[in-house]
Amino acid sequence: MKLHLSGTKSFASDNWSGACPEIMEALQQANHLHHPAYGENDPLFQQVKDRFQEVFEADCEVFFVFNGTGANVLSVSHLLQPWQAIVAPRSAHLNEDEGGAPERFLGGKILTVECADGKLRPELVEPFLSSKGFQHHVQPKLITISQATELGTLYKPQEIRELAEFAHSHDMFLHVDGARIANAAAALGCSLAEMITHTGVDVLSFGGTKNGLMFGEAVVFIKPELAIGFEYNRKQGMQLASKLRFISAQFMAYLHQDLWLRNAQKANEMARLLAQKIETVEGLMLSRPTEANAVFAILPEKLIPLLQKETFFHVWNEAKNEVRLMCSFDTQREDIDGFIHAAQRLLNSL
Amino acid sequence: MKLHLSGTKSFASDNWSGACPEIMEALQQANHLHHPAYGENDPLFQQVKDRFQEVFEADCEVFFVFNGTGANVLSVSHLLQPWQAIVAPRSAHLNEDEGGAPERFLGGKILTVECADGKLRPELVEPFLSSKGFQHHVQPKLITISQATELGTLYKPQEIRELAEFAHSHDMFLHVDGARIANAAAALGCSLAEMITHTGVDVLSFGGTKNGLMFGEAVVFIKPELAIGFEYNRKQGMQLASKLRFISAQFMAYLHQDLWLRNAQKANEMARLLAQKIETVEGLMLSRPTEANAVFAILPEKLIPLLQKETFFHVWNEAKNEVRLMCSFDTQREDIDGFIHAAQRLLNSL
Amino acid sequence: MKLHLSGTKSFASDNWSGACPEIMEALQQANHLHHPAYGENDPLFQQVKDRFQEVFEADCEVFFVFNGTGANVLSVSHLLQPWQAIVAPRSAHLNEDEGGAPERFLGGKILTVECADGKLRPELVEPFLSSKGFQHHVQPKLITISQATELGTLYKPQEIRELAEFAHSHDMFLHVDGARIANAAAALGCSLAEMITHTGVDVLSFGGTKNGLMFGEAVVFIKPELAIGFEYNRKQGMQLASKLRFISAQFMAYLHQDLWLRNAQKANEMARLLAQKIETVEGLMLSRPTEANAVFAILPEKLIPLLQKETFFHVWNEAKNEVRLMCSFDTQREDIDGFIHAAQRLLNSL
Amino acid sequence: MKLHLSGTKSFASDNWSGACPEIMEALQQANHLHHPAYGENDPLFQQVKDRFQEVFEADCEVFFVFNGTGANVLSVSHLLQPWQAIVAPRSAHLNEDEGGAPERFLGGKILTVECADGKLRPELVEPFLSSKGFQHHVQPKLITISQATELGTLYKPQEIRELAEFAHSHDMFLHVDGARIANAAAALGCSLAEMITHTGVDVLSFGGTKNGLMFGEAVVFIKPELAIGFEYNRKQGMQLASKLRFISAQFMAYLHQDLWLRNAQKANEMARLLAQKIETVEGLMLSRPTEANAVFAILPEKLIPLLQKETFFHVWNEAKNEVRLMCSFDTQREDIDGFIHAAQRLLNSL
Repeated sequence: MKLHLSGTKSFASDNWSGACPEIMEALQQANHLHHPAYGENDPLFQQVKDRFQEVFEADCEVFFVFNGTGANVLSVSHLLQPWQAIVAPRSAHLNEDEGGAPERFLGGKILTVECADGKLRPELVEPFLSSKGFQHHVQPKLITISQATELGTLYKPQEIRELAEFAHSHDMFLHVDGARIANAAAALGCSLAEMITHTGVDVLSFGGTKNGLMFGEAVVFIKPELAIGFEYNRKQGMQLASKLRFISAQFMAYLHQDLWLRNAQKANEMARLLAQKIETVEGLMLSRPTEANAVFAILPEKLIPLLQKETFFHVWNEAKNEVRLMCSFDTQREDIDGFIHAAQRLLNSL
Repeated sequence: MKLHLSGTKSFASDNWSGACPEIMEALQQANHLHHPAYGENDPLFQQVKDRFQEVFEADCEVFFVFNGTGANVLSVSHLLQPWQAIVAPRSAHLNEDEGGAPERFLGGKILTVECADGKLRPELVEPFLSSKGFQHHVQPKLITISQATELGTLYKPQEIRELAEFAHSHDMFLHVDGARIANAAAALGCSLAEMITHTGVDVLSFGGTKNGLMFGEAVVFIKPELAIGFEYNRKQGMQLASKLRFISAQFMAYLHQDLWLRNAQKANEMARLLAQKIETVEGLMLSRPTEANAVFAILPEKLIPLLQKETFFHVWNEAKNEVRLMCSFDTQREDIDGFIHAAQRLLNSL
Repeated sequence: MKLHLSGTKSFASDNWSGACPEIMEALQQANHLHHPAYGENDPLFQQVKDRFQEVFEADCEVFFVFNGTGANVLSVSHLLQPWQAIVAPRSAHLNEDEGGAPERFLGGKILTVECADGKLRPELVEPFLSSKGFQHHVQPKLITISQATELGTLYKPQEIRELAEFAHSHDMFLHVDGARIANAAAALGCSLAEMITHTGVDVLSFGGTKNGLMFGEAVVFIKPELAIGFEYNRKQGMQLASKLRFISAQFMAYLHQDLWLRNAQKANEMARLLAQKIETVEGLMLSRPTEANAVFAILPEKLIPLLQKETFFHVWNEAKNEVRLMCSFDTQREDIDGFIHAAQRLLNSL
Repeated sequence: MKLHLSGTKSFASDNWSGACPEIMEALQQANHLHHPAYGENDPLFQQVKDRFQEVFEADCEVFFVFNGTGANVLSVSHLLQPWQAIVAPRSAHLNEDEGGAPERFLGGKILTVECADGKLRPELVEPFLSSKGFQHHVQPKLITISQATELGTLYKPQEIRELAEFAHSHDMFLHVDGARIANAAAALGCSLAEMITHTGVDVLSFGGTKNGLMFGEAVVFIKPELAIGFEYNRKQGMQLASKLRFISAQFMAYLHQDLWLRNAQKANEMARLLAQKIETVEGLMLSRPTEANAVFAILPEKLIPLLQKETFFHVWNEAKNEVRLMCSFDTQREDIDGFIHAAQRLLNSL
């Protein structure tokens, strides 16, 4: 059997990469005889849950789901009634890129704020509070932020703490979309507990797929009492895996010897390197700070399609010729060198 | 890293098994460099779609989803407005075991019929037609059947054809929940095209996980015009995998050299053997015909918990001491011998 | 302006009648200058709420909605998560005649039981409890009964109490669909407080439209803590009237000098009379006991369409030639005499 | 019986008014004997539908619902799949003031645009078209505008035509929220057919309650083929009135001798008068043009609560001390004189 694979590297997205070797090894290891389906009475799931509790320094509840959409939509809607609203930056993945999944599953509304750097702040949420108690308006009940953001920026733990305090003081929850939480932690040099548990976050979508897993994400309720009934929402949300052991095994490997951190560090390092090299090329210009594993740059309009043919990447803002270059755990120096050389060569030929 | 695996075999369910070697090999092979996410402009996905069209002898549209709940709920709800109803046997997985997912995602109703053998027939659907045109009632629009059924029984192709003709003559669709379609095809000795395409089925949930895949199911619209817009429903239904290549690769392997059929044949053969052996043991009694890979038997009440401790299986009907024993692609003669010997030993000790 | 009205009487349904004179008078009286919309800071709403609390002998919360569908669907779904299920008789209006509104608004499932007389009993609910805690099944959380039932039968207060106790002992709620609660109270000779508050009912759909109102129903949460947030569900459920004063005024009149009871007594009395007269006609036969304002009878097949042309009524069960004859507050002795004479005349001519 | 009515006039909203005399007369007339429920086989409904077809000069389909939320949410969601999006001005009632009802009933998203004057234009919708065909984004499919807008502004028929042409050229629909369509028609001096049918609008929420009806709105599908199945959506949306004749009768009266137009003309005339008088008072300032029956003005901050105590009205924009003064069919010159005198008196006392 011959699979038609693309056989190239790219800077398109960290989910164009495959699974890292440790993850493949864990899948192999988990593929042994029969094992309870659905995580029920499952020693492996208990083992990985214990590990999460160590890492997060909390009596947290953990649930595995298939993908980031599932993690985000289920975690958020579990905490809300349909007439309660989510407050999010307009650029949030949950708002822009989930195809309306939150509205469909929750039956509720997302209230959005323009945030130039992709980051919410308490003062940007405050105006929505005037709807509280007014029966004609949805009731703001949950704040969601992405760490790292869709624009590659980061919240400092203190900024998260301020949002959590603001949320709780107004009877709201704080959710973190952590599709790239590992890259954030690696960049900030702080532990997951420092960034999530000790800042007061209520629930986290803990990403894995963008950082070396084959599939699977985790919903982590730092406060276990918020998780009551979540298993029914997961099932009704079509996110309960029968052969759950294969997600459990991946997360065991992911949390083993800080694989999550090592993978993220590599991706971040490559992004920094890529950003540095871009700055050395005349005609290319960074358009945003490189804080985690995303590099944003402005390229000459004619260069873009030519360069995409050699190494694919996505245009972020067509009007500005701004492109996004994502690095992942398996990005190599040679990939960056190749990209930079191709850019130079093509620039010269223009 | 040491994973806490159960390390045993069981007859609990065909989803307690792992992935078969060919599938693991395909996953390994697919884990190569970068590849387009989400199946967009994806040569591998095109390759596997071509293969489906060959197998089904149809210009069918194929979409991969994560699990059987996703396949069933999305395929069915895609064809319906919320005020249109699904007609199903009460025992249908879609009705009993999806945790209300169809109602949540569709916002509609399932009309159920008691079917002693788990099989719908046109005359059982007919009474619901009297609601057609009556604005106070949901409007029956789709018939769903499971092949094999949850009770281990099978529809003959002619029976499926009759349901399809009945459905179409009343402006309804026919959906097949094929979580165990491979076992059905293996048992009936007919091709997938003979069973699905040539009988007039509109859409199929094509199962893989219960027959040797690690994860992933396919929604197959035999009539491609019915698939229009399905990609948006899949995304909104949280069932779009970013690293889709790993599902594509599994299905390439699954359809390669009839792996799907060989796995199913093995499971069915083991079920027949198990049934035969059960009949030889005094005190055990088959309770239903063994048509695919499920064996239903009545056991002495006291035996059940003792035997479960050695080789786990589920009680199907507590009132009758009826148990269900599922065989899977990796069930071995020794597993069956071990089970029968244990049963005899425990019976003697009672 | 000339309105094309039917200009006849019928036994089709108690909602074929109009508004009784006291209600028209109240609407006239309420049509005075400007008044706060939506019941906000509304002295009239406060007045009618006080009246409800007197009548129900409870610190209950009251919300007006437009119709019975709204009352039933909103009250029930307010108490549930989508993965929690309603247990209902199959014949419940909520299950059969709301066009799937509960499934759409709640996103959940109704578990149904066949009840020959339309009445649930604890032992009929009990089998569903085995799903509790099983993540693949919806979780039964609310029992709903209709008083009077769709089959014209009644629950004695003691029967309601038993259901309430059963519900509460299993962490469930009890809802009463009281579209014809007035007819039930009139027939049983007990107060609303005796039937609802003192039996332990959690929430009541308190009907008005079928008993002399022009439009409007009330949702009554006997336990006010269960009502928290209901105003948002009502708005989101599209059931908040802007000129709410016109519903408030009708309910003030309805509860004034027991109009609700007097109207219901008249309807019940006429039903008893109709039932008596039917028994005197050879060829007609009562098919169910006449406990409130519905009379069920079996008629010669050929008589039905002829008699319907003179005085319309609905066929209840076509297979049995069973018809339903509803009496309402404005049914008169002459209407009954006319019906019986027509039946006799037509029978003689057959 | 004594009803606790407010007994005052106000400028709070046109839904603080009651029902106009012709409407009360029609309700009285319709309250005659029995009449078919739900509009089924209903000569009165046929009569009013014929009248709508005359007025709209179209073979339109008409459905009555209870309120504006129902009209807006049902008409819009009927034309959409959940993954298809509504494009609306951020200020749209549908977006801001329906408590999330569209999201709940449709399960989809509203894409919003800032519009300083409350009016959409094709160029403001255009940016959303880039999402078309991208499976991660909701698919824009319907444009909704309010006529008159929530800011009291009007679309000229030509502007509506341009939006309709833009919508249709991109396979989208145009919906008009006509809660105040009568005020718009009166102000523009054009017929409903000129404004709606001949501009190409697909579906209209035709308001009545804000212009003299007691309750009830109409959904008008100008193109009847778009209405197919709407009766099931109405029922499932809890908006089917049993005693529908009382809405039919109101709309017969409303369309009789142009009552709808006369009522709206009065309200508009009073708004113009109020605006003129406000301009004569030093310290008060109009903040927006007065095009229909809404007057927006900026008042001294201290005046607002004092004046509200005498004649209630709503603050529109707290930051700017901008208030909204709504006139209705029953606003009288004396009411305006009283308001202006009170304002002057209170201003002098400040």
